Amino acid sequence: MKISLERAQLLKALAHVQSVVERRNTIPILSNVLLQASDGKLALTATDLDIEVVETVAATVGQGGSTTAPAHVLYDIVRKLPEGAEVSLDHDSASERLEIRAGRSRFSLATLPKDDYPAMSAGDMTHRFQMAGTALKTLIDKTRFAISTEETRYYLNGIYLHTMEVNGAPVLRAVATDGHRLARVELPAPDGAAGMPGIIFPRKAVGEIRKLIDDVEGDVAIAVSDTKIRFSMGSVVFTSKLIDGTFPDYQRVIPSGNDKRLGVDTAAFSASVDRVSTVSSEKSRAVKMALEDGRLTLSVTSPDSGSATEEMEVDYAGDAMEIGFNARYLLEIAGQIGSETAVFELQDAGSPTVVHDDGTSTALYVLMPMRV
Amino acid sequence: MKISLERAQLLKALAHVQSVVERRNTIPILSNVLLQASDGKLALTATDLDIEVVETVAATVGQGGSTTAPAHVLYDIVRKLPEGAEVSLDHDSASERLEIRAGRSRFSLATLPKDDYPAMSAGDMTHRFQMAGTALKTLIDKTRFAISTEETRYYLNGIYLHTMEVNGAPVLRAVATDGHRLARVELPAPDGAAGMPGIIFPRKAVGEIRKLIDDVEGDVAIAVSDTKIRFSMGSVVFTSKLIDGTFPDYQRVIPSGNDKRLGVDTAAFSASVDRVSTVSSEKSRAVKMALEDGRLTLSVTSPDSGSATEEMEVDYAGDAMEIGFNARYLLEIAGQIGSETAVFELQDAGSPTVVHDDGTSTALYVLMPMRV
Repeated sequence: MKISLERAQLLKALAHVQSVVERRNTIPILSNVLLQASDGKLALTATDLDIEVVETVAATVGQGGSTTAPAHVLYDIVRKLPEGAEVSLDHDSASERLEIRAGRSRFSLATLPKDDYPAMSAGDMTHRFQMAGTALKTLIDKTRFAISTEETRYYLNGIYLHTMEVNGAPVLRAVATDGHRLARVELPAPDGAAGMPGIIFPRKAVGEIRKLIDDVEGDVAIAVSDTKIRFSMGSVVFTSKLIDGTFPDYQRVIPSGNDKRLGVDTAAFSASVDRVSTVSSEKSRAVKMALEDGRLTLSVTSPDSGSATEEMEVDYAGDAMEIGFNARYLLEIAGQIGSETAVFELQDAGSPTVVHDDGTSTALYVLMPMRV
Repeated sequence: MKISLERAQLLKALAHVQSVVERRNTIPILSNVLLQASDGKLALTATDLDIEVVETVAATVGQGGSTTAPAHVLYDIVRKLPEGAEVSLDHDSASERLEIRAGRSRFSLATLPKDDYPAMSAGDMTHRFQMAGTALKTLIDKTRFAISTEETRYYLNGIYLHTMEVNGAPVLRAVATDGHRLARVELPAPDGAAGMPGIIFPRKAVGEIRKLIDDVEGDVAIAVSDTKIRFSMGSVVFTSKLIDGTFPDYQRVIPSGNDKRLGVDTAAFSASVDRVSTVSSEKSRAVKMALEDGRLTLSVTSPDSGSATEEMEVDYAGDAMEIGFNARYLLEIAGQIGSETAVFELQDAGSPTVVHDDGTSTALYVLMPMRV
């Protein structure tokens, strides 16, 4: 292999692919990036056995070929080269070294044979559809904070993507929950998505694809099978295995008969919750919301350090009631509400509460109360 | 105690004093800030038994008095209050609670008796002098990176400040070393400093005073005794105990007969060292510098990942030689050189090397070589 290309091109591709490479690997070749040069382009592949990213960039190929080299070291080298540099990559199969040259800098890295690099089997994709990058961003951003981190409930360690009919129209839904709160958002189902299997898209892959979307304009092509999901955008192809489990019947958790409606100013409510929770110790961050006609009193009592109370005027005409929530969960949900007003639909102190915005978005949140 | 004051004033003072309060304390009252109100002002005091910070701010004092309350919680509360708020602090000695009120927010914090708050004895200060805040900043910034973190060599865990005569003129010198590198900078001795005892100003206090200088304009009044140093600036008085030990005779370490002179472009040299060190594993970050007429070759060889070589044109006319240095130490020292050119004075591969700028500053660095 003997190629040269512009530093900026190589850097961008390496930044994308090295991100999935774990810092510590028991299998040495998983620390490496697979470099394949042919026909005026270089393909870079990285994998952690669950996720595979392939990016292709234009390159001047003197001699085709392929090898694998340490992903993080190669990325750091290219990152530190001066802007505008032309980088040459030269793999001599006799010495088994990759030579990197730019200006008066020369690096020689140990390589591992390309034939040992694990390939992710393509598999048969059963459903294919397209959506705007911004739409995919919304599905992720509105739900990912609620993904469970409990390893034992592995089937909650991702975003559940599935299609269904709502009022006769097909929608694509993203749902995440950790058992304490749930986030749900939907979009009109793109052509080709209807009937796709419900899939659980794992947390690490969610984070990686979220980073990639920012760098890519335009549409994302998505292909789905029972076991894999693939995103193609620009010059990047991102494939992830799915979580092999059954997502719980989340619809049962979303109450429909909550008849007490509370409207709050989203920003003022967030600031108040943040302030009153200051006095509580980390573990039991419960905020009590006491509701009466037109008024909400937020309060926190901590046995160690003290108490805090704050009042705000709200839109509420139901019976007086008290209910407690985890402060962090309240703040995270309020942070997702894009409208000036956040709406709570309450039943009683022991029942799940629904939170949503003023109707401009399809996102909906369910929050389990805490005893206070 | 019953006072009120502007949030911004209280916040700034709390930010300064809470910084010295440790997150975990075995003595509960050390988590608290001492609040003392009288005569139109509030004095806030925090201590970790080695450092004491006192800041005084204007306040409307309805009733004088004092108490102690949790420093970090109080700081967080005031930080989260809306800008421009008027904050009232009210301590009822019967209930032993501090009430904090602002707008519609109310907080009640547990207090501890002010009489239990540890006071740092004033002691007799033997020398008093003044210097510009910017001058103190220079003394700290040019030396602190070389302070040792080895607890067993406690006498190196600070900056050594002392006065001496250089070419017949009294200077104030700051020196720090960890045995591998040494940093020395000096200023004309301020009036009153001459003859002061040589003191070792401990690392945590160095960091705290450095943060305070940024917020204060103008001069800093410094008072020194055998056991303490005190800085007074604006409305802040900062006192620190000194390290009770003997700083080694550092002058012996600074070679004077190094006759090989190397001039490098500071920025290009830093970038090169940074690049070639990419391939080395964390532990043995040795960079080899090979010198010959007009040319420097930097190289790193790592048994694991590979090797790197970089050449640069330099100002060197001595005999060809090779010498190795720790990459991080080289980068830290180069980062302190303010001039375009950095000058190395070398002897041989086993002898300490002197580094300084082109003559615009009094700072001087000594670096021990590594075997490569």
